[in-house]
Amino acid sequence: MQLSRRITGLTAGGSDGWDVYYRAKDMLAAGEPVIQLTIGEHDIGTDRKIIDAMHAAALEGHVGYSMFNGNLNLREAVAARVATRTGVPTTPENVLVVPGGQAGLFAAHHAACDEGDTALYIDPYYATYPGTIRGVGARAQPVFARPDRNFQPDPAEIAAVAPGAKSLLINTPNNPSGVIYTRETMEGIAGACQDHDLWLISDEVYESMIWQGEHISPRTLPGMAERTLVVGSMSKSHAMTGSRIGWIVGPEEAIEHLGNLSTHTTYGVAGFVQEAATFALGMGEAFETEVSDPFRRRRDLVIDMLEGQTAVRAIPADGGMFVMLDVRATGLSGEEFADRLLTEHLVGVMPGESFGQAAAGHIRVALTVDDDRLAGAIGLLIELATELAA
Amino acid sequence: MQLSRRITGLTAGGSDGWDVYYRAKDMLAAGEPVIQLTIGEHDIGTDRKIIDAMHAAALEGHVGYSMFNGNLNLREAVAARVATRTGVPTTPENVLVVPGGQAGLFAAHHAACDEGDTALYIDPYYATYPGTIRGVGARAQPVFARPDRNFQPDPAEIAAVAPGAKSLLINTPNNPSGVIYTRETMEGIAGACQDHDLWLISDEVYESMIWQGEHISPRTLPGMAERTLVVGSMSKSHAMTGSRIGWIVGPEEAIEHLGNLSTHTTYGVAGFVQEAATFALGMGEAFETEVSDPFRRRRDLVIDMLEGQTAVRAIPADGGMFVMLDVRATGLSGEEFADRLLTEHLVGVMPGESFGQAAAGHIRVALTVDDDRLAGAIGLLIELATELAA
Repeated sequence: MQLSRRITGLTAGGSDGWDVYYRAKDMLAAGEPVIQLTIGEHDIGTDRKIIDAMHAAALEGHVGYSMFNGNLNLREAVAARVATRTGVPTTPENVLVVPGGQAGLFAAHHAACDEGDTALYIDPYYATYPGTIRGVGARAQPVFARPDRNFQPDPAEIAAVAPGAKSLLINTPNNPSGVIYTRETMEGIAGACQDHDLWLISDEVYESMIWQGEHISPRTLPGMAERTLVVGSMSKSHAMTGSRIGWIVGPEEAIEHLGNLSTHTTYGVAGFVQEAATFALGMGEAFETEVSDPFRRRRDLVIDMLEGQTAVRAIPADGGMFVMLDVRATGLSGEEFADRLLTEHLVGVMPGESFGQAAAGHIRVALTVDDDRLAGAIGLLIELATELAA
Repeated sequence: MQLSRRITGLTAGGSDGWDVYYRAKDMLAAGEPVIQLTIGEHDIGTDRKIIDAMHAAALEGHVGYSMFNGNLNLREAVAARVATRTGVPTTPENVLVVPGGQAGLFAAHHAACDEGDTALYIDPYYATYPGTIRGVGARAQPVFARPDRNFQPDPAEIAAVAPGAKSLLINTPNNPSGVIYTRETMEGIAGACQDHDLWLISDEVYESMIWQGEHISPRTLPGMAERTLVVGSMSKSHAMTGSRIGWIVGPEEAIEHLGNLSTHTTYGVAGFVQEAATFALGMGEAFETEVSDPFRRRRDLVIDMLEGQTAVRAIPADGGMFVMLDVRATGLSGEEFADRLLTEHLVGVMPGESFGQAAAGHIRVALTVDDDRLAGAIGLLIELATELAA
């Protein structure tokens, strides 16, 4: 039986650079002492207090159909959080609750693009981006953010491909690069979106993990709130990856239509999960700092260890859960380097090639193991790179 | 800012016959003693044992990313259940876990239809059906199941519109009609699907609520397993409406592509919810009978009460949570009758017109309050109908 072209064309096919990830996973499963620095999941689980709040909510009766667009108390909490952090007036009518950031990315592109429309995204990119765009029937067009600009996208390059496009997807703090887009970058992006009438889809799931510089949500820039759909999530900020809960913040009219879409894609999000998220947001900034602090500390640890050598260059790791390293001085591709590091030293990292073309010759290190093991892994990594670069 | 035509056209606009539902809800909220027989939600909540199993799973660590296509133990449990109930060989590779039946309906249509394709559905229909089809960019084409056939669809009418269509969506036991499609109906539907190369999307979320006749899953019919996508859910069978968990059962290749889609639409379902579902399925048939028994009893109660009068005719209520009543003898439309019943007697029911055109002049009664209140409401309903029909 014939499946739709849209679903069969969702993944581009061929090697996607994730072989090393699956190999590391298999080696671990086979009992080999691999240090896994591949994917972005906290080494702590969800806090016991949040889990207990979820249980209490379920026992109190939050087990029936909930409002398809999100419970009012959660939408109020998200609106208040966004308004406080950005200064942009934000009400519950600007907020749709969705089952995780990925669901937000899909819905936002569904709202922005019709079949055959062009949707722009920045390369290097989080693994699901092009498939998400193809999943709504749109054409996924990358704009390359180059290592010589520390992966800050060039607004002029965006403007060059923007005519006729419907949307641009950005992510700052960025996965995989760890870079935070500067005010200059963001203003340039905003200008390109306004000049060419693009929706800006802004993935801000790492917004609570800022190590240097300033996170600028594009809704704060003049004329941008009306054309921006912000995707947020509890996954990274509150170590709730498995709870699958997030939101879209955007103009009221878009949020209303996105609510209709939710009725037809998910019929809302579990009430007990929404209550757990409301409780978690109520724990305040101190808790978010507690969740993010290990990543800041480990990022500093990696940067310190890299000093005094030239085989590996760190991209400025401004925020998020990762450090991106330039290993081109070794003469190997990111894939080859990651492969040797895993085979010879039992350290699993992601090749830059897993995130598109722009980060070739780089590797992404997830800061997701305890400091001692991380230091051990980085030591081995530097050793291998130095040996190869010599 | 311009939104996609697909999202702005998702709901057809205008009155959708749900006014009486919202009015009943508002009256209840204002403290009026309305008996709500409008929507299909159990009057019991999710069982405490299931809630506690979810909590235990979260505490045991099921709080991180889970497999995007569903955890193996749950896919095994669903496959075993389906194989036992239908006799059709079914493996975990035939099962995708999704966040609820609605998510399954959306994904199944995404897999079957490209932009502009025609997707057939039976009218009367569950409220989200046409919007789900429009949500994947397809054209929603109803086939009318008529009251003079007790809302059994006519395969000849399906065959007449099938040429060029990509899929047919059916639901048996049916919401809103309460009818179970007969073997003759199902064989006719299977024939039409094979003759015209349609995917059959079979919404079987009421399959555990059978009062008379036999539920026939179309995968059991010759040549149909390869072209059928069954949507199932824990919502109705296990009173887990708010947990948002269900599945699609279908051919391996389709399930694999649907897994790719899940990665891009939801990134999987919360692990603790999957564990709760696995636990609930393990409670066995006795528990499902416990959940469904009140609906069987109340269905009998309504049918008994209707004897000896002719103002209201019950459509054979073979299964599910509803009884559909023909009130055409009153001279009123379903909407007018529901409106007067709410206004004059504080009983909320859904007009047949809420479910399309075919059930005009009917009302749907949800069997979702305790027997005494239900009997009181049906008494008032018969009184009003008799008065009007006189």
